[in-house]
Amino acid sequence: MAILALKKLDKLFHPDSVAIIGASPDKKKVGYAALRNMVDCGFKGRLYAINPKAAEYGEIEGVKVYANISEISDTIDLAVVCIPARFMPSLIEELGQKGVKYAAIITAGFKETGSDGAKLEHQIVEIAKKYGLRIVGPNILGVIDTSAPINASFAERSPIKGEVAFLSQSGALLTGILDWSRAEGIGYSSFVSLGNKADLDESDFIEALADDEQTLAILAYLESINRGSKFIEVCNKVTRKKPVVVIKSGRSEAGSKAASSHTGSMTGADTTYDVAFEKCGVIRADNAQELFDMAFAFSYMPIPKSNRIAIITNAGGPGILATDEAERNGLELASISSEFKEKLKEFLPPAANFNNPIDALGTAQAEDYSRILELALKDEGIDGAIVILTPQAMTEGQETADKIVEIRNKYPNKPIVSIFIGGEILGPSIYHLKKNRIPCYPHPERGVKAMAALVEYAVIKERPSIEEIVDLDRDKARVREIFSKVKSEERTNLLGTEAIEVAKAYGIQTPPTKLAMSAEDAGMFAEEIGFPVVMKITSPDIVHKTDIGGVKLNIKNKEEAIQTYIEIIENAKKHHPESKILAVDIQKMEKTGRELIVGSLKDPQFGSLVMVGMGGVYTNFFQDVAFGLAPLTKLEAIKMLEQTKIFTLLKGVRGESPSDIDAIIDTLLKISLLVSDFPEIKELDVNPFFVYEENEGVSALDVKITLEE
Amino acid sequence: MAILALKKLDKLFHPDSVAIIGASPDKKKVGYAALRNMVDCGFKGRLYAINPKAAEYGEIEGVKVYANISEISDTIDLAVVCIPARFMPSLIEELGQKGVKYAAIITAGFKETGSDGAKLEHQIVEIAKKYGLRIVGPNILGVIDTSAPINASFAERSPIKGEVAFLSQSGALLTGILDWSRAEGIGYSSFVSLGNKADLDESDFIEALADDEQTLAILAYLESINRGSKFIEVCNKVTRKKPVVVIKSGRSEAGSKAASSHTGSMTGADTTYDVAFEKCGVIRADNAQELFDMAFAFSYMPIPKSNRIAIITNAGGPGILATDEAERNGLELASISSEFKEKLKEFLPPAANFNNPIDALGTAQAEDYSRILELALKDEGIDGAIVILTPQAMTEGQETADKIVEIRNKYPNKPIVSIFIGGEILGPSIYHLKKNRIPCYPHPERGVKAMAALVEYAVIKERPSIEEIVDLDRDKARVREIFSKVKSEERTNLLGTEAIEVAKAYGIQTPPTKLAMSAEDAGMFAEEIGFPVVMKITSPDIVHKTDIGGVKLNIKNKEEAIQTYIEIIENAKKHHPESKILAVDIQKMEKTGRELIVGSLKDPQFGSLVMVGMGGVYTNFFQDVAFGLAPLTKLEAIKMLEQTKIFTLLKGVRGESPSDIDAIIDTLLKISLLVSDFPEIKELDVNPFFVYEENEGVSALDVKITLEE
Repeated sequence: MAILALKKLDKLFHPDSVAIIGASPDKKKVGYAALRNMVDCGFKGRLYAINPKAAEYGEIEGVKVYANISEISDTIDLAVVCIPARFMPSLIEELGQKGVKYAAIITAGFKETGSDGAKLEHQIVEIAKKYGLRIVGPNILGVIDTSAPINASFAERSPIKGEVAFLSQSGALLTGILDWSRAEGIGYSSFVSLGNKADLDESDFIEALADDEQTLAILAYLESINRGSKFIEVCNKVTRKKPVVVIKSGRSEAGSKAASSHTGSMTGADTTYDVAFEKCGVIRADNAQELFDMAFAFSYMPIPKSNRIAIITNAGGPGILATDEAERNGLELASISSEFKEKLKEFLPPAANFNNPIDALGTAQAEDYSRILELALKDEGIDGAIVILTPQAMTEGQETADKIVEIRNKYPNKPIVSIFIGGEILGPSIYHLKKNRIPCYPHPERGVKAMAALVEYAVIKERPSIEEIVDLDRDKARVREIFSKVKSEERTNLLGTEAIEVAKAYGIQTPPTKLAMSAEDAGMFAEEIGFPVVMKITSPDIVHKTDIGGVKLNIKNKEEAIQTYIEIIENAKKHHPESKILAVDIQKMEKTGRELIVGSLKDPQFGSLVMVGMGGVYTNFFQDVAFGLAPLTKLEAIKMLEQTKIFTLLKGVRGESPSDIDAIIDTLLKISLLVSDFPEIKELDVNPFFVYEENEGVSALDVKITLEE
Repeated sequence: MAILALKKLDKLFHPDSVAIIGASPDKKKVGYAALRNMVDCGFKGRLYAINPKAAEYGEIEGVKVYANISEISDTIDLAVVCIPARFMPSLIEELGQKGVKYAAIITAGFKETGSDGAKLEHQIVEIAKKYGLRIVGPNILGVIDTSAPINASFAERSPIKGEVAFLSQSGALLTGILDWSRAEGIGYSSFVSLGNKADLDESDFIEALADDEQTLAILAYLESINRGSKFIEVCNKVTRKKPVVVIKSGRSEAGSKAASSHTGSMTGADTTYDVAFEKCGVIRADNAQELFDMAFAFSYMPIPKSNRIAIITNAGGPGILATDEAERNGLELASISSEFKEKLKEFLPPAANFNNPIDALGTAQAEDYSRILELALKDEGIDGAIVILTPQAMTEGQETADKIVEIRNKYPNKPIVSIFIGGEILGPSIYHLKKNRIPCYPHPERGVKAMAALVEYAVIKERPSIEEIVDLDRDKARVREIFSKVKSEERTNLLGTEAIEVAKAYGIQTPPTKLAMSAEDAGMFAEEIGFPVVMKITSPDIVHKTDIGGVKLNIKNKEEAIQTYIEIIENAKKHHPESKILAVDIQKMEKTGRELIVGSLKDPQFGSLVMVGMGGVYTNFFQDVAFGLAPLTKLEAIKMLEQTKIFTLLKGVRGESPSDIDAIIDTLLKISLLVSDFPEIKELDVNPFFVYEENEGVSALDVKITLEE
C-alpha cells in the first residue's frame, strides 16, 4: 500500500482507520449504505461505526458501534459523516479534538439550500480550520478509491478497478456513470464527489491525483471552479504528467441559470473557461459521451509521438467516415511508403487499397489484420493505428481481436484504437478487446475522436515550459497616482488624457495628447503638439463622443483649434446639459494604419482576460477577436494573435507589406502587465489601435479605462 | 400484403416470386447465403434456385434447383444474382427475355475495378433497358424488407422488424449496422445496399420508400449522388411526408480521395451537398452515432409542434448538461406556468427545482415522474419532454420506465425522449423502454440532440411549398447571340462589355459601359457616357487588371480620357506583350456603395450555385458568403442573404439607413435565372457589386463570365 500512497490527501484516499459517523442498521439509510460499502469493498484498515444508540445496536454488518468518536482509542484518518446538518458544528469540533484528518460529509442541507445553510457551512469550515481537519463536501455521494480500496460512499455498488479518476460536482452523475461503466467494463482508480466544495475543491484533488500511480487520467464534471488561479497553476503542472479532461456545464445562458440554482455557485462566462483551460492544458470535452470515450483511450493507450495515423479496415465506407473525421480533428493520414506497399502486396488481394486508409477488403482474415497492424506500428512514419472491422461473411472477429491484443503487447509504445461495428455477432470480440485494454468504439467517428484526443494531449504534454512573464520597465507609481485621483473623485471612468497617461506609463505607444480646459489652452496645446490635430470632447458623462459632434479631425491651425474648442463644448452642452466636467482632448493626428482593437476585461473567476482582434466598423459583426488570460507569456500573446483571421492580413498578402506584428505583441504584453499589476482595472479598451508597417510601430489612439467600484 | 404494397419498385420489395441465380449448396458461398436467407426470413412467395448443376444438386435447403431460368414456367419478379461478372451480359439477356422485373446483382467486379469493369457494367445496363429490367447494384450486399418479408442478401442474419429504412452505398456498413442494431434492439423496415448504382439509385429508392407505410424514416449512407436534380426533386416531395437523414461521406479532402478510389464515382465539393440538402429538406447527420440516434427518435416518436421542451430529472448535473445541449441545438426550455408549479408543489419536496429543468431530486419515485410527465404533456405551452433518470438509492428504474410507457400511450401526440444514465442496474429498464418504443440514450447530450432532430424535422415538414420560380422579362436571344460570338472566337472568357451586356439583358443594374478600340473612341464614348468615368483594360488574356496599371478612376474630361487610353494600352503591352486583343472599357463612375459580391459557380452534380456575401478587401479572409442552388425561389434568396453576417449591416445599424435589400434579392433571382437558362455558364462573378440605400438600387460594376469549354 505504501507504494501506492498519494503524497497529498494520502490518508483520505488510503486511510488506515475509518469511522462512519451516523452508521445505521436501517438498510434504507445512507448511514447503513456507507458502512456496508466500506465492509464490502474489502477495506484492509480499521473500521468503526458511530451512533448514539451504540448500546442498542451492538454491531452493524460485523462492525462494532461506538456512541461517540471519543470512545475510540485508535487514531482516525477519515470520518464519513451521515448525521443531520444541525449537529454538524458540534461534531466537527469533536472530530477536530480527536485529531481526525479528513471528514467526508455526505449530509446535505448546506449552501445549496440558501443563506442559512451557507452560514452553517461557513461555520463548520471555520471550526475545521482550527484543527487542520480537511473537509470533502458537504452534500456528496462520497469518496471511492479502488486500489486502497475504500468505498466511503452511499453508492449502490463499487466501480471496477481501473486507471481513471473521476471527480464530479454532481453526485447523481457519479452514480449513473458508475452503473453505466460497470456494464461497459470501464474501470476507475477513484471516484470523488465534490459536493459544495466548502473546503477541498477540484484543484486539491487534481493536485493529489497527479501523484497517484494508479491514476493515468483525471476526468472531471464541473459546474464551477472555486479558485481560478489555483486551478490554472495546478493544472499547468499536472497536465505535463497526465491528461486532465473536463466537462464544464452551464455553457449556455439557460444552463448557467440552472447551475446557479443548483449548487449556489456562480458559473462564469464560457469564453473564460475555454481560455483558462487552454492556458493550463486542460482538455475540454464537449459532452459526456466524448468524456468517457477519451477516458478509455487515455487509460489504455500510450501517447503518440505525432499525428500520423494509419487506418486499417475491411470495408470502404467506414474507412471513409473515419478519414473524414480524422481530417476534421487534425489527424494526418500517414503516407504509406512504397516498401510498406510492397509488403502488403505479398498477402493482400490486388483489389485492396494500399493507400491510407488501407482497405484489406471484406475477405480479410485475422492474420491479415495482424500483419498490416504490425507493419504499421513498426513503421517510423506512423504514430498510431486505427483498426476498423465490420462483420462480413469471412470475418474472424474473435481471432482478429486476439491478434490486436497480441500486437498491442508487442508494440506497447504506439496507440491502437479499434472500431468494431457490430453487436450481436461481434459482441464477444468487443468484450474481449475492452477486457484486454484495447479501446473499442461502435462507430468510426467516436474512435477517431478518441485517437485525436491522444494526439491533442501529446502536444499538451510536450508544450514548452512557461517562460518567465516578461518584466518590463514601467512607471507603476504614476499609474497608482492617477488611479488614486480618480478614486478620490469618486469616478470609475478615467478621462481620455488620464487613460493615455496610464498607457504611456507602461510604454504603450500613444500619440501626444493634452487636455484643454479653455479655448486658449486648445490653441496653445495644438500649436505645441503640431498640426494637424484631432480634438475630442472629454467628460465622464459622455460615452458616444462622435454621435454628439464631439470629435473633430484634421484641425490645421491655431485659429481653427480655438474655434473648434468652442464648437465642441457647445455641442456637448446641448446634448448633455447636466455635465459638470467638459473639456477637450487635443491629440496629434496620426497617419491611418490598419485598425485593430486591443483591450482587457476582468473575470471574477480567473482574473483579467486580454483581447486582440479586428477593429473598425466591422468589429462587432465579425467578432474576429481572441482572448488570453493575464499574465501572458510572449508565446501566448503570439498564439492569441495567430488565432484571429486578421492575422493573415497582418502578415501581408497580395504584395502588401506586413504589419508591425512585434509591436502588437509588445502592446499585448504591456496591457497584460498593467492589468496584472492593477487588478482594480475592470475594463480597458484601445479602439482604434492603429498598426503600421513592419518596424513602424503602433498607436493607441483612444484608450478607455474603467475601474472597479 | 396488398396494403403494404409500394407503388414504386413494388415487386422488388414485395415480389411474389424470387429466383436465386447461382444458388449453391456450398455454405461458404454467397449463392448459398442468399438462398438460405430467403428461406429463413419467412418469405411467403415462390422461391426458385438456379444453377447449371441442377441435376447434381436436386434441391438446396429444400428449394428445387433449375439449370436455367427459362425452365421455370412461373413469372419471376426478382432475380438475385450471384454468378461471376463475366457471365453477366448473357444472363441479363436471358432475364430480360424471361420478363424478370428486377435483378439484384450481388456480384462484384464492375465499375469499382476499373475501366473494363465499367464497360461491362454499361453493357448490362444497356441490355436491361431493352427489356425494362431494373437493376439494383451491381456489387451489393442485397435487399431486405422485413414486412414482406424478403432477405435477398448474403448478410449473416436478418434485421429486427421496425420502421426505419436504411440505404447504404457501403455493403459492409450495412452488415455492421445490422449486427449492432440487433444487439441494441433497433428495428428496420428495409435495408438496401446501393452498390455501384448502375441503374436504380438513391433517388429511386427514396421515392419508393416515401409510399411505404412500414417506413417512418429514411436513412442513407451516401458517398455520392447520381442525379443531383432528380435527388432534389424527389427529396423535396418526400421530406414533406417523412424525414430523410443522410450521412454523406467524403467530406474532407482525403475522404474524397478515398471515396473516388472506392466507388469510382466522383464526390462533389462539400458545400454543394450542404446547400442541396438544405434546399430539399434532407437532414444531414454529422456522424454514424447521430444518424442512428435520430433514427430511434424518428421511428418511435411523433413530430412536435414547436421547440418548447420540458426537461424532467432526478439529478441536477445531468439536467444542466441537457440544458446546455438544448440551447446549442435551438431547443427552448419551456417556461413552467405558475399553475404547473403549484401542482408540482403538491407532491414534490420544497427543495426541488420547479423551473425548467424540473429537478424532482434524488428521492423521486416512479409516481413522481409519472405525474410530472403527464402534467408536462398536457401543458399547452410544452411541445415535448426529455426525461432524465440516474440510479440513486431510492430510484425505481423499472417502475419509472413502465410509467413512461404508460404516459406515452396516453399522450401519443407529443414526443418523449428518455435519458437513463446507467447500465448494470438500469439495464433492464433501458431494455424495457426500447422494447416499448421509447427512445433511450445513455448520455444527456445524445438524447437532447435526438429531440432537436425531431424539432428540426417539424420545421422541414411544414415548410412553405415551393413558390413558382419567378419568371422575369429577359432578353434570352441577346445572351445567346453574345455567347455564340464568344464560342465562335474560341474564347471561354467574356470581355467586360460583353458580360455587362449579358447582365443588362437580364435586367441586372449595371453602369453604362462602352468598349473603346482606339483613343478617339475613348474620348468620344467618355463624353457620351458623361464624366467622371472609369477606364479599364479589357483583354481575354488579362485577369488582374489593377496590378498592371490597367484601371484608372475618376477621369474628368475628354482630353484625359484620350491620354488615359494610351497609357492603359501601353501598360498592358508592357506586361502582356503576347496579347492580341487589347481595348479599354469606358464606364460611368458610380458613387460608392456598400461592397458586396454576388456570383455563380457550376457544380457537376447539382447544377449552378448562386453566391452572395461581403465584398471588398476582406472578402477572402472572412468568407462571409452564403450559397443557394439555382433556380432560386424568392424565399431561398432571402434566406441566403440572411445567412451572411453582412446582412446585419445591410439592415442598418447605429442610426445608419438600411441598404436596398430588395434590389439585392432581385439581382440574385436574375442571376439564378440567367445561369438556369444558360447551363454553359461555368462561373459568373460580380465584384464589386455596390448596394445603395433603400430604394436607390444596386450596381454591378464589374461582371466576369466564363463559359464551359
